[in-house]
Amino acid sequence: MEFKMDWERVERIGLPEAVHAQSKTPEQISAVVEEARQKGLALLVTRLEEQKYHCLGQELQTLLDYDPLSRTAILPGAKIEQSLDIRVAIVTGGLADMRTAREATRTLEFSGIFCTEFPDIGVAGLWRLMERLDEIRTFDVVIAVAGMEGAIFSVLGGLISAPLIAVPSPVGDGVAEKGQAALTSALASCASGIVTVNIGNGFGAAHAAMRMGKLRSHVVNQDR
Amino acid sequence: MEFKMDWERVERIGLPEAVHAQSKTPEQISAVVEEARQKGLALLVTRLEEQKYHCLGQELQTLLDYDPLSRTAILPGAKIEQSLDIRVAIVTGGLADMRTAREATRTLEFSGIFCTEFPDIGVAGLWRLMERLDEIRTFDVVIAVAGMEGAIFSVLGGLISAPLIAVPSPVGDGVAEKGQAALTSALASCASGIVTVNIGNGFGAAHAAMRMGKLRSHVVNQDR
Amino acid sequence: MEFKMDWERVERIGLPEAVHAQSKTPEQISAVVEEARQKGLALLVTRLEEQKYHCLGQELQTLLDYDPLSRTAILPGAKIEQSLDIRVAIVTGGLADMRTAREATRTLEFSGIFCTEFPDIGVAGLWRLMERLDEIRTFDVVIAVAGMEGAIFSVLGGLISAPLIAVPSPVGDGVAEKGQAALTSALASCASGIVTVNIGNGFGAAHAAMRMGKLRSHVVNQDR
Amino acid sequence: MEFKMDWERVERIGLPEAVHAQSKTPEQISAVVEEARQKGLALLVTRLEEQKYHCLGQELQTLLDYDPLSRTAILPGAKIEQSLDIRVAIVTGGLADMRTAREATRTLEFSGIFCTEFPDIGVAGLWRLMERLDEIRTFDVVIAVAGMEGAIFSVLGGLISAPLIAVPSPVGDGVAEKGQAALTSALASCASGIVTVNIGNGFGAAHAAMRMGKLRSHVVNQDR
Amino acid sequence: MEFKMDWERVERIGLPEAVHAQSKTPEQISAVVEEARQKGLALLVTRLEEQKYHCLGQELQTLLDYDPLSRTAILPGAKIEQSLDIRVAIVTGGLADMRTAREATRTLEFSGIFCTEFPDIGVAGLWRLMERLDEIRTFDVVIAVAGMEGAIFSVLGGLISAPLIAVPSPVGDGVAEKGQAALTSALASCASGIVTVNIGNGFGAAHAAMRMGKLRSHVVNQDR
Amino acid sequence: MEFKMDWERVERIGLPEAVHAQSKTPEQISAVVEEARQKGLALLVTRLEEQKYHCLGQELQTLLDYDPLSRTAILPGAKIEQSLDIRVAIVTGGLADMRTAREATRTLEFSGIFCTEFPDIGVAGLWRLMERLDEIRTFDVVIAVAGMEGAIFSVLGGLISAPLIAVPSPVGDGVAEKGQAALTSALASCASGIVTVNIGNGFGAAHAAMRMGKLRSHVVNQDR
Amino acid sequence: MEFKMDWERVERIGLPEAVHAQSKTPEQISAVVEEARQKGLALLVTRLEEQKYHCLGQELQTLLDYDPLSRTAILPGAKIEQSLDIRVAIVTGGLADMRTAREATRTLEFSGIFCTEFPDIGVAGLWRLMERLDEIRTFDVVIAVAGMEGAIFSVLGGLISAPLIAVPSPVGDGVAEKGQAALTSALASCASGIVTVNIGNGFGAAHAAMRMGKLRSHVVNQDR
Amino acid sequence: MEFKMDWERVERIGLPEAVHAQSKTPEQISAVVEEARQKGLALLVTRLEEQKYHCLGQELQTLLDYDPLSRTAILPGAKIEQSLDIRVAIVTGGLADMRTAREATRTLEFSGIFCTEFPDIGVAGLWRLMERLDEIRTFDVVIAVAGMEGAIFSVLGGLISAPLIAVPSPVGDGVAEKGQAALTSALASCASGIVTVNIGNGFGAAHAAMRMGKLRSHVVNQDR
Repeated sequence: MEFKMDWERVERIGLPEAVHAQSKTPEQISAVVEEARQKGLALLVTRLEEQKYHCLGQELQTLLDYDPLSRTAILPGAKIEQSLDIRVAIVTGGLADMRTAREATRTLEFSGIFCTEFPDIGVAGLWRLMERLDEIRTFDVVIAVAGMEGAIFSVLGGLISAPLIAVPSPVGDGVAEKGQAALTSALASCASGIVTVNIGNGFGAAHAAMRMGKLRSHVVNQDR
Repeated sequence: MEFKMDWERVERIGLPEAVHAQSKTPEQISAVVEEARQKGLALLVTRLEEQKYHCLGQELQTLLDYDPLSRTAILPGAKIEQSLDIRVAIVTGGLADMRTAREATRTLEFSGIFCTEFPDIGVAGLWRLMERLDEIRTFDVVIAVAGMEGAIFSVLGGLISAPLIAVPSPVGDGVAEKGQAALTSALASCASGIVTVNIGNGFGAAHAAMRMGKLRSHVVNQDR
Repeated sequence: MEFKMDWERVERIGLPEAVHAQSKTPEQISAVVEEARQKGLALLVTRLEEQKYHCLGQELQTLLDYDPLSRTAILPGAKIEQSLDIRVAIVTGGLADMRTAREATRTLEFSGIFCTEFPDIGVAGLWRLMERLDEIRTFDVVIAVAGMEGAIFSVLGGLISAPLIAVPSPVGDGVAEKGQAALTSALASCASGIVTVNIGNGFGAAHAAMRMGKLRSHVVNQDR
Repeated sequence: MEFKMDWERVERIGLPEAVHAQSKTPEQISAVVEEARQKGLALLVTRLEEQKYHCLGQELQTLLDYDPLSRTAILPGAKIEQSLDIRVAIVTGGLADMRTAREATRTLEFSGIFCTEFPDIGVAGLWRLMERLDEIRTFDVVIAVAGMEGAIFSVLGGLISAPLIAVPSPVGDGVAEKGQAALTSALASCASGIVTVNIGNGFGAAHAAMRMGKLRSHVVNQDR
Repeated sequence: MEFKMDWERVERIGLPEAVHAQSKTPEQISAVVEEARQKGLALLVTRLEEQKYHCLGQELQTLLDYDPLSRTAILPGAKIEQSLDIRVAIVTGGLADMRTAREATRTLEFSGIFCTEFPDIGVAGLWRLMERLDEIRTFDVVIAVAGMEGAIFSVLGGLISAPLIAVPSPVGDGVAEKGQAALTSALASCASGIVTVNIGNGFGAAHAAMRMGKLRSHVVNQDR
Repeated sequence: MEFKMDWERVERIGLPEAVHAQSKTPEQISAVVEEARQKGLALLVTRLEEQKYHCLGQELQTLLDYDPLSRTAILPGAKIEQSLDIRVAIVTGGLADMRTAREATRTLEFSGIFCTEFPDIGVAGLWRLMERLDEIRTFDVVIAVAGMEGAIFSVLGGLISAPLIAVPSPVGDGVAEKGQAALTSALASCASGIVTVNIGNGFGAAHAAMRMGKLRSHVVNQDR
Repeated sequence: MEFKMDWERVERIGLPEAVHAQSKTPEQISAVVEEARQKGLALLVTRLEEQKYHCLGQELQTLLDYDPLSRTAILPGAKIEQSLDIRVAIVTGGLADMRTAREATRTLEFSGIFCTEFPDIGVAGLWRLMERLDEIRTFDVVIAVAGMEGAIFSVLGGLISAPLIAVPSPVGDGVAEKGQAALTSALASCASGIVTVNIGNGFGAAHAAMRMGKLRSHVVNQDR
Repeated sequence: MEFKMDWERVERIGLPEAVHAQSKTPEQISAVVEEARQKGLALLVTRLEEQKYHCLGQELQTLLDYDPLSRTAILPGAKIEQSLDIRVAIVTGGLADMRTAREATRTLEFSGIFCTEFPDIGVAGLWRLMERLDEIRTFDVVIAVAGMEGAIFSVLGGLISAPLIAVPSPVGDGVAEKGQAALTSALASCASGIVTVNIGNGFGAAHAAMRMGKLRSHVVNQDR
């Protein structure tokens, strides 16, 4: 067998194993999902394009809870119980950032974390942020997803005290084509204490929030 | 003679000739200034580092009005009278952006344009912008100078209706080291109708404002 | 609802809200257009590829005035009346730049601004520019669209006194493949006072011209 | 006065204002420090090169607690009391990463956060990490500083469950010259949930840890 | 005839000629394979996409031993006998790296070199490497294939004494999209004595191993 | 001895050997010049910074004809007689491009080629080019040297029929800092048949002109 | 009409107008060809992909002499007679470089220039070059086309005295994917006097050769 | 103590620990050397600039065998005896590449490996390589050091059968300024089986050769 899933990862570091489908063939994906099913384990699949999803067998398609916007599929099953008692806000700069944002949402929901999306909070219309700022401030961790110039990262960073995870999204034209402008904005922000993940990495942002969640919950010392 | 100044430029396109000192030797700079002096013409010298200024002859040093922060020198003399009836606001993101901003100020003042600096208007402390927004809105053209992630460009762009000229400044660390992050932010801004000049180009921003000024003044058709 | 249009933007900063269709699904686009229709508002949609346009419902397709070259669609409806009394020239370097140029034209026409296209004014055949220079000089603002090396920006910049907005277009081979060479040419131009927008951003150039138009018109102080 | 410190930032978002000295003149730095002193406030100055420190007046030099390795200076004074009850581990890949790591240490100590440095934990000698892994696992937040290829980020990420903040450091030759290789390693890590700050940004990493600390402490809701 | 195969290369430098199909038309590929067949020579074809393979004539398709994962085809035939008495381990970071790894495997097998694949040895689950380290250490040369951040190169480099050839693979998102992050990791590794080939170049890695193999075998001096 | 000059190059390909001083120590340069002197051969040294020139022995300094602007030194001596009957025009975009242009001039003069400099022919003041165009058209080969955006390459290319060699020069700010913008302009020019050499490579441009000169002269077949 | 062909270019600078089809629609191409046909002029169309060629009307397809490898089409017709008495060698590094090389061949043949292709002269098998070197040396101008690392440029440059035009071709994997490695090799060559055109620009190389040809022929002074 | 030398590395993987001095302070370097001296161990220090060497204490300076060209220092002492029975050729493209080449030489000599330098083997004068090719072919491993366009890597790769380690060196102007062009040439080489190390990494190339040497010697299985 060509792969070796890290099923014990959730016990080791508290983050469940997942499958990144992008460079994998439908056969490889099916095999991993099948292995999880046989073990009775829940499994999250990310970056599963719709047409690749339809290449999986009919039976697997039925088993999986598939969401085309975020390109994620979830296989129901047993999970390690964790009590991560945090609430995560997911703020998006524009409608086009929803693909990446929803990946974060689905990843958090898969692990039972409470989260709320705040869509279309662009800085070009600052009032949209101001209207909802008080609500955003009640969350423990904020994930901000933005493409183009990513100015929202700095504006938010100066207004909230919670951990702020910037996710540059691959949205924009010309110099911003693949999210590079938003990435450099996040890294070079004049607002201090902002952290960043890779372009389009909603999954990674969710896992980062879960690592932070351990500071809050009672399982924080489980690996000590 | 190795150079040929474009002394008639001001008559042709309304922008006075200037000398960019960066890649020129002190001898070359002296020769140009000398030629202007003999013609009795005023002259603006930009990017004149302090030590290069001190390499010019003692007499020239005395003649020139030198400003070390903006690295500009002004030779007094005759100018084409233009009546550009505009008021320009120069907003800076942080203290370190003043070098570039002051170059714009000096260039505008050299041509008799009214302008006001609004220093230290960073988005990380949004209240600093909000406090002065009403005043900024009374200006005809706004030049915004910012390094790092340049988020101020987008925030301002969503709040004012005047022409907004973004000047990325060479201020920042790591990925923002030479102003590249601010430049891409300006170009990729989600606020529409923002225009940009080269990194650190306060002089160019001032000249762009002067071009716009012709829309306002009575000399707008002079070259038709 | 996942989006929040900024319908009041035109009142706030004088630039009407528009929809950038590139990273949006047909469903998302339909929903926004539908909302505008119900409010009786006119709406401009940009970067709407022909095949995505055909994915919109038959009824919407009929309602929209679609132009495949510029990839723009216009929903007729009510607009805030503005009296921007300017004339804009749109100069293109070559036939292939027309896609970007036409986006500017459509955006200006949507807001009732007078504009004229000057196609195929490349510097390799300088006579083409010289033949029409006097006519170009009668315009208040000039938008120049060019790919490849973008030399037209500098040539024009030295010949006209009006505001000059350079739009690098994504046209060229090898090192110029995505408009990067034209962009750096615009930023590094030896002609002073040229301003730039993002690669291919005809829409942004048009909005920049509209900002400048306020200097000319009687509504310039509306937001003071 | 050309600057406007954000002295209330600590109350607004829990992070004290600091001065980034890199692009500022000694006069500008002195003025800010002086203002803090007159208000009786403590102040952290970062990126203060040794020779610039010696350009400050003799009196200021004496007042400041200066550390040449991290290029930080601390002005003693009043601070907002915060009870951030977290312990931070600072792991460095090699001796040369200490400059950046110490900046994080000093920033945390300035705010009264407990932290411990784990120097020279490079992956080329994996035993160095393994020897101290159990101890590192007892900390609430881990900051990892590494230049060159930054492989330590991924190795650590697979071994600990705490929040992991990667700080690429500007250490390396050739393709790694300015920390770019370590930055891309951090962003592209196969270990999930790692977050990153800008190259060399020990200060930002410390502030990020402090934001996370609010999840742990009793002041977490202070800005709600 | 437009091409000139280097059929004597194997005699000159010990590496058999091969055909890189990527930028060649099916006609060009057929012609080369045909020539080899007429000479009765074995031939390896690399980067032969499945659809291009199916464009070759039916007869050629039958003759060739085609492997879609590695995109290689082998024409059976005469080979120069070499006795390269080495054993090569091929370690991959993740399932998606198998395309590149298999190209190395097929190239080695074509020349009769013994090799073994060690799939899915990612550093995020270090135990996967540790479990098989002793076995890997018994090989003469190790080829490591990894995309994303390529941390496995450094970890392996610190644990084994054999020659280690890093092959960055074009696997990853955002900043790692085309293997660039893994390439810089390999070049900037803190583990010394690692060598690198181009992104995705499994073929080149295999040939490099064969060059090293001459140190071991009795034919090492054949070209002296 | 660590070096091996190619003294026969002039006989082999008609281009005399030269010494590129940039990465060489004064000792290495002295040794080469000394060897030439002992053979009685003329020698051109390029990129010899003034301070490095002064590190050569007093005797060598006297022997060499040194020009600080172009950073070239010439050792008089025997040369292979060539009759390259061409006239070369060297057009520069601005005063700062003279360093690079003069390197071309000196290289041509060293080989006895007739050349004339046309300084300060920038496109921002097109009349400067037009005034001298007829004269430039009388030359056999034109070398154009320009930094910043390099628009002069395309303008000239559309006006003259002679071979046009573009030399991007390392002059400019921001995005043009090291001549990169001028280089891409030269490569992406819309004027056809322009050729380019490396940034700042006046020496290479001169040698390219000499290669072309063989088409004109009677020695063109000497190496056949 | 949206375009303006430069039909007089051949008289002005000796290079006939051509159509670059890449970013043009079939309609635009048809219109230009039609105009040429009505004027009775010959016309060269470049970068005309096979499928776009098939979108032209049936009548035009028949009129045009189309070559799919080079993606060029030739409309027969009247030409300005030029007597460019030169012979051009076109050397290619590998089979995949033939697309670009053939574009040069077709462009030269369109203008009646004698040229010969020397295919598959890669440096990895130096004997292939050596076998044909004497023949190559009899040509007046050499165009070398190579992708990957472009080492052939430097090797040839050290062996021949004729003008050498390097054409980087978009052939290669990983770091060489789009011809960038070959381009930098051409520019940075240690062999002096090599000139370069844009990646894949066989057309430009041919026109550059034609400019050089004027040095040889009797029409060299036509534009004086 | 802030550092932890890996003194056992030579036993673990056969490569002795060394100190990379570039980003370390004189104090840090002294401390490491001192520790080695007290243990009686030999130690190699690399990238030790001459002025930093002179900052070490007088006693240390005397103890160390310092070579300014390669910027290496050697502390005599005990070494693990290894019998690596290989001969390494170090070929350099030009005089300026000697700094990097000598670092390889010194590293090999420190470990008792026989090596010979072949200086100034540039491809622009191919005869220099051909003259010495037979001699180079007698070596077991070849290290080639070249800056600029690095064509020598491909030429050598096609002529020898031994393992070939390319070391791009930071020598060149314009696009080759920091060795990037040579690096891409090495990676994209058309000669197969070439491997590469980081720019300027003579030390790494030497260690790579030592890893290969284990294939030859009797200690190859020491870590099994």
